[in-house]
Amino acid sequence: MSGAPLERLSLNQATTQHWDMRQTIEGCARAGIGWLGVWRDKLAAMGVAQTARHLRTADVRVSSLCRGGFFPAATDAARAAALDDNRRAIDEAAEIGAPVLVLVSGPPFDRDIDLARRQVEEGICALLDYASEQGVTLAVEPLHPMFAGDRSVVVTLAQANDIVERIGSPGVGVAVDVYHVWWDPDVYQQIARAGRRIVGFHVSDWLAPPPDHLLGRGVMGDGLIELRRLREAVDAAGYAGPIEVEIFNRDVWDMPGEEALRLLKDRYLAWC
Amino acid sequence: MSGAPLERLSLNQATTQHWDMRQTIEGCARAGIGWLGVWRDKLAAMGVAQTARHLRTADVRVSSLCRGGFFPAATDAARAAALDDNRRAIDEAAEIGAPVLVLVSGPPFDRDIDLARRQVEEGICALLDYASEQGVTLAVEPLHPMFAGDRSVVVTLAQANDIVERIGSPGVGVAVDVYHVWWDPDVYQQIARAGRRIVGFHVSDWLAPPPDHLLGRGVMGDGLIELRRLREAVDAAGYAGPIEVEIFNRDVWDMPGEEALRLLKDRYLAWC
Repeated sequence: MSGAPLERLSLNQATTQHWDMRQTIEGCARAGIGWLGVWRDKLAAMGVAQTARHLRTADVRVSSLCRGGFFPAATDAARAAALDDNRRAIDEAAEIGAPVLVLVSGPPFDRDIDLARRQVEEGICALLDYASEQGVTLAVEPLHPMFAGDRSVVVTLAQANDIVERIGSPGVGVAVDVYHVWWDPDVYQQIARAGRRIVGFHVSDWLAPPPDHLLGRGVMGDGLIELRRLREAVDAAGYAGPIEVEIFNRDVWDMPGEEALRLLKDRYLAWC
Repeated sequence: MSGAPLERLSLNQATTQHWDMRQTIEGCARAGIGWLGVWRDKLAAMGVAQTARHLRTADVRVSSLCRGGFFPAATDAARAAALDDNRRAIDEAAEIGAPVLVLVSGPPFDRDIDLARRQVEEGICALLDYASEQGVTLAVEPLHPMFAGDRSVVVTLAQANDIVERIGSPGVGVAVDVYHVWWDPDVYQQIARAGRRIVGFHVSDWLAPPPDHLLGRGVMGDGLIELRRLREAVDAAGYAGPIEVEIFNRDVWDMPGEEALRLLKDRYLAWC
């Protein structure tokens, strides 16, 4: 088994939360990291046009934009507002050259989780033509079931595959994040089933027990996830794109950015 | 839709952590709660024979003993020690009249989660004859996937059903805890599939986000779980036994016991 090549490494900028967009782009360029996973808050802070110019100058490409989604809502007006915001995210993705917009489905707004799930699928369908026109692929990302109440009613890769197969358009695929799917007895079967509909792959590690609900992700090698096995399964399914390191972890945030990038690069090469 | 009858209410004693065994038994009797879910640490503190006597005197029956399991281990000796401890748990269950021993499978001991899962199934098989001789049914309880790294490699009802069907003995069934399974898109199908192999049903609620990894469970009605729908599904599958209220929550622990029992009884009648 050989490791993933450096050429596929992407820094998801949630990993270096204390860096602004300029620092992140320049940090990646200096570290020889050719890809960046962009977050909308950082993009808004620097401005979309200026970010696009900076990325071109630094020769850093965007692997994905995080994030659209958050579809379920109690009223027509709130659901329409969510769609409007998703269309703005699609515009932004197109402008910075992000091939993929990652969709975090959103939580239920009351106890009716089935209704919330239907609204997610309706929301994706409503965006599909607009995204396709802009050349942006929508990526349904199943989140770990511990986020079912506050982040995403889509919680398994099987469920994401079901949605994507029902929609049946090349404009929508799935994002596989090892942190969210590693526990699933069905994960390898569902990765194979997803096949070329995998449009994103994210890595971190699972610390046991997770030290925090949101900020509990570990650096690759510090936890329990079979990273190389999952990466090879995703590759075998047909995915050959960037591999985003996405680690929400206060200790990583508190490291000097350059040091964090060195650590992540070493661990990526050793474990992915 | 009518609610669950008071006659089926069971107090899992993890809910009133600051009460000892005697207080718990007497508290249930005073509150008109006819069932108790017993934990081994409290049982050891009072002694098995004395607990059995106290239960008879108070006319409180045991719905289950928590817990056996924790099978995966790196060495033969450690796995054998786990089996010995499980046999002691079976003895205790028989002596206090617990029809069911709840099995929490245990975490992986390294990155090989498949191996840990095989060891869980081997462990259950190794206990089966002994449990049957003692008249104790083993209950495989899938835990929420957020416990996959520190508590249980069995994380879905589908997986528990697979194990129980492969073993194919009336001496092993599944325990359904709403906190652990509510997020699962497949939960109603898997409850129907489990059918009469359901040998335990536990209730609490899911707070969003969970305020704590272990102590984050909510009182029924305070969260997002469709409690009545799940209870009716479990009943429709053929389960008619006690319904254990099992809430790991520091606020509930810190309430005076009598007050906690009033609250739980009211919420059980309103929501289950």
